[in-house]
Amino acid sequence: MEKFQEGDLVVLIPTFKSKKKRKFVIKLKRGLKTHTHYGSFDHDYILNVSPGDVVETNTGFKFYALKATLVDAVFHFSEFKYATQIIYPRDWGLILSFADIKNGSKVVEIGTGSGAFTAFLVFRVGEKGFVYSYERDPERAETARKNLEKLCVPKRYVIKVRDVAKDGIDEKNVDVVFADIPEPWTIISHAYNALKPSGFFVAYIPTYNQIEKTLLELEKFPFIDIRIIEGFVRDIQPKHYAIRPELKGYYFSAYILFARKVLRKIQ
Amino acid sequence: MEKFQEGDLVVLIPTFKSKKKRKFVIKLKRGLKTHTHYGSFDHDYILNVSPGDVVETNTGFKFYALKATLVDAVFHFSEFKYATQIIYPRDWGLILSFADIKNGSKVVEIGTGSGAFTAFLVFRVGEKGFVYSYERDPERAETARKNLEKLCVPKRYVIKVRDVAKDGIDEKNVDVVFADIPEPWTIISHAYNALKPSGFFVAYIPTYNQIEKTLLELEKFPFIDIRIIEGFVRDIQPKHYAIRPELKGYYFSAYILFARKVLRKIQ
Amino acid sequence: MEKFQEGDLVVLIPTFKSKKKRKFVIKLKRGLKTHTHYGSFDHDYILNVSPGDVVETNTGFKFYALKATLVDAVFHFSEFKYATQIIYPRDWGLILSFADIKNGSKVVEIGTGSGAFTAFLVFRVGEKGFVYSYERDPERAETARKNLEKLCVPKRYVIKVRDVAKDGIDEKNVDVVFADIPEPWTIISHAYNALKPSGFFVAYIPTYNQIEKTLLELEKFPFIDIRIIEGFVRDIQPKHYAIRPELKGYYFSAYILFARKVLRKIQ
Amino acid sequence: MEKFQEGDLVVLIPTFKSKKKRKFVIKLKRGLKTHTHYGSFDHDYILNVSPGDVVETNTGFKFYALKATLVDAVFHFSEFKYATQIIYPRDWGLILSFADIKNGSKVVEIGTGSGAFTAFLVFRVGEKGFVYSYERDPERAETARKNLEKLCVPKRYVIKVRDVAKDGIDEKNVDVVFADIPEPWTIISHAYNALKPSGFFVAYIPTYNQIEKTLLELEKFPFIDIRIIEGFVRDIQPKHYAIRPELKGYYFSAYILFARKVLRKIQ
Repeated sequence: MEKFQEGDLVVLIPTFKSKKKRKFVIKLKRGLKTHTHYGSFDHDYILNVSPGDVVETNTGFKFYALKATLVDAVFHFSEFKYATQIIYPRDWGLILSFADIKNGSKVVEIGTGSGAFTAFLVFRVGEKGFVYSYERDPERAETARKNLEKLCVPKRYVIKVRDVAKDGIDEKNVDVVFADIPEPWTIISHAYNALKPSGFFVAYIPTYNQIEKTLLELEKFPFIDIRIIEGFVRDIQPKHYAIRPELKGYYFSAYILFARKVLRKIQ
Repeated sequence: MEKFQEGDLVVLIPTFKSKKKRKFVIKLKRGLKTHTHYGSFDHDYILNVSPGDVVETNTGFKFYALKATLVDAVFHFSEFKYATQIIYPRDWGLILSFADIKNGSKVVEIGTGSGAFTAFLVFRVGEKGFVYSYERDPERAETARKNLEKLCVPKRYVIKVRDVAKDGIDEKNVDVVFADIPEPWTIISHAYNALKPSGFFVAYIPTYNQIEKTLLELEKFPFIDIRIIEGFVRDIQPKHYAIRPELKGYYFSAYILFARKVLRKIQ
Repeated sequence: MEKFQEGDLVVLIPTFKSKKKRKFVIKLKRGLKTHTHYGSFDHDYILNVSPGDVVETNTGFKFYALKATLVDAVFHFSEFKYATQIIYPRDWGLILSFADIKNGSKVVEIGTGSGAFTAFLVFRVGEKGFVYSYERDPERAETARKNLEKLCVPKRYVIKVRDVAKDGIDEKNVDVVFADIPEPWTIISHAYNALKPSGFFVAYIPTYNQIEKTLLELEKFPFIDIRIIEGFVRDIQPKHYAIRPELKGYYFSAYILFARKVLRKIQ
Repeated sequence: MEKFQEGDLVVLIPTFKSKKKRKFVIKLKRGLKTHTHYGSFDHDYILNVSPGDVVETNTGFKFYALKATLVDAVFHFSEFKYATQIIYPRDWGLILSFADIKNGSKVVEIGTGSGAFTAFLVFRVGEKGFVYSYERDPERAETARKNLEKLCVPKRYVIKVRDVAKDGIDEKNVDVVFADIPEPWTIISHAYNALKPSGFFVAYIPTYNQIEKTLLELEKFPFIDIRIIEGFVRDIQPKHYAIRPELKGYYFSAYILFARKVLRKIQ
């Protein structure tokens, strides 16, 4: 049976009831110990077990040890640093589905942030795709770079430190330009030039005021089929004897705007 | 500038105001004409224009011609046949994100249905991934097979006509087993055996009653970290002078249940 | 056992499965017949049965005959005429609860519209309360007047034909000023003057753009404790063997803004 | 100008930015002082000001003093004690609107709880209406009794300590029976007997499992026009320059079931 290996991201999930459902994500490295409120995890010990098995901390707390998903990692891996609020996993898939990002897609991202969505994209565009990510803040770019390395994201991406509003986008003929910056309207002309016809401009927009400005600017360019959505996910309590939605949770993240490039617009 | 080519799926989007925002998706074939309420589209003519350009029907209606996305195709391509209600695009990405389906993933799907979600998956798992799709109804399987061919989905999938509840799953060590059938509880033991440890069992569940039965059956197997969600997407009217959600739309599709395989369960 | 009486509003609910769950509301009048797709209802016959009993049309379709609620009436009473889109019943109660409208309240309504919400209010403010309703469009005011009469709303209301933005509000010291007009910002000064301190200004606002303008104007007056909400109601399919939300429905109506008058504002 | 009077419920709203938007509700009594984190409120001082004016604590924090609404009181009045989770104000109005509770209604409530909804109802049914509230737990009944007194609710209600499932309902011919108990199915026969024909049985139901049992029991009685809803309210951030929904909040409270009594049922 397969064992864990060095470099694996492992999610440790309590076998016991814990109010907060506290998970831990660690990256296995021979000789290391990771300390938590529940005692410490010995990496060497975990390297001797199989994914799906149960491990113990030095104080006897038992955890399931599984291969971590990207969602586990961005929420529970202490080495993943937040440079900014990340795009919520519940929105990742909406962007991917509606902008048709798939194996082979070339995507420009403006606003790398912490790199969580960058990682998500790289894992879906495959060996033939590529993610070009721009971040104007050098510190954030550096944080993202480290995060992506820690997450072992395949090197099908590049992070460039640049203010796209001022200095533009290098790439041409890309499938999608995705913007997660406070002023998406400032980079629309650059997005238009970078996109192939039929390609998608996508913006992640927190407020109505920003939607208004973005729509007004979009009208100046040959973009069509504009769609704005908001996604919302509700958790259902998974108890067979008391099935109901949870009472409290996130009920808003951001609006997502989609627009498609055409060569010219008919009024 | 790139031109359309034979075999391309083209989405034709009205340049004029049309109440229903009626789009058409066609598959280009030399010599063909496609007839619509707005007149007919001449494929030869479209083969001479570039994606993003404007084309006319023989009666003078103008449409933008773009490369079609999968979402365009499943809703507007008359050759895509519905064997069953498809999994909504707004749910595709939730399943993909939370079950960590990515480049290289091996996915078993139980309930091919019309094949829309199968297509979505194949386009994301890439050359190293694979989708094994089981469908117990031979007619539905045939419809799905044709749909996938029409959509030019790369041959990284297989459709097997089989009732998994009775006859099981051939594959072992897969990353995800996804079930979209009325009785997901009947295939949980098979799903457990097919999955690799850390792998995800995912079920698309329309009613509370089915959640209850699925949860009760899940308890008999070493599955942990059970999460049930419902996704909900609202469209925002994209008019800069009157920004508000649309009034009416889909406000439910199905519940999505996730569970992860472990080797043994601690009570 | 009590029988129906002349003037009663009766709701007729099919005893048979009908796709649309078609209800009819009629106002009983001796000698009258009401014609429908299912045959005609004979008022004299209904005047001889008790509420809760079953009646038949002349063609043999059976209906339950119940006392109609206001919600029944505004949706199913053909004599209730729509001058404008009404405020949705799902929003009535939110306004009432959060603006503390109760027995004895004096309410000014700006934008009578069809009078549905006016009726709702009058039935809750009781003998000691009163509803002063302003409508600038004389035709709409006339429609509302007739609607309220047809609904037998007790005469604890008045409808005035006036453009409040230009000509103000007569009343002073009212508990609530409620505005359902396209430009709520134009009547805020008048609302302030009409309200008693602690009283609520409430606006029913369809778009973000109108919220923005209303908030900007509100800042010029001593209003505090501003709250904006949107209410959302989802129907659950009432089948014990298939309990789930309905798939489609209204998922937006309008935003509701609340603000409370104080004597002076501390910056 | 009107001043506050002894016995008034006053809500004190910070004039300063406070992260939690902390309000206080006090009941004015000559000679009293109320102590808070922001210093103490001197009732005598407040008795000398007008509603809508600004008052200071002894340590100089300034608050707006307004007449408190019922919603203010149930959330911010420390003398209002929680015997159980209350029915959320966002649901009060849905029940009232869809069950047509109005001036003059006779309502039976099963499960008084803390009495918040009882108070809401009494304030809407007016002098001609009445609320008969049953609570099987004597301590809870006592808490509710005190709460209603503290809230100065007019004596148009009675609280009876009784287990309705065992001992039934005294009243006949009431307009609405409302149940907020864990087993609503146990009191349906009693509700049927207490209601007038056309009257509403309403249940506040936290889980799907309880809906299922309630629907199964309802089928045994002549109840029709069954409707189940869930209401949900989202707060919008009231900043004119950044209008968007709040990120987090309550997104579920309970399901509300409505059914209407008829004399006999046609299958």
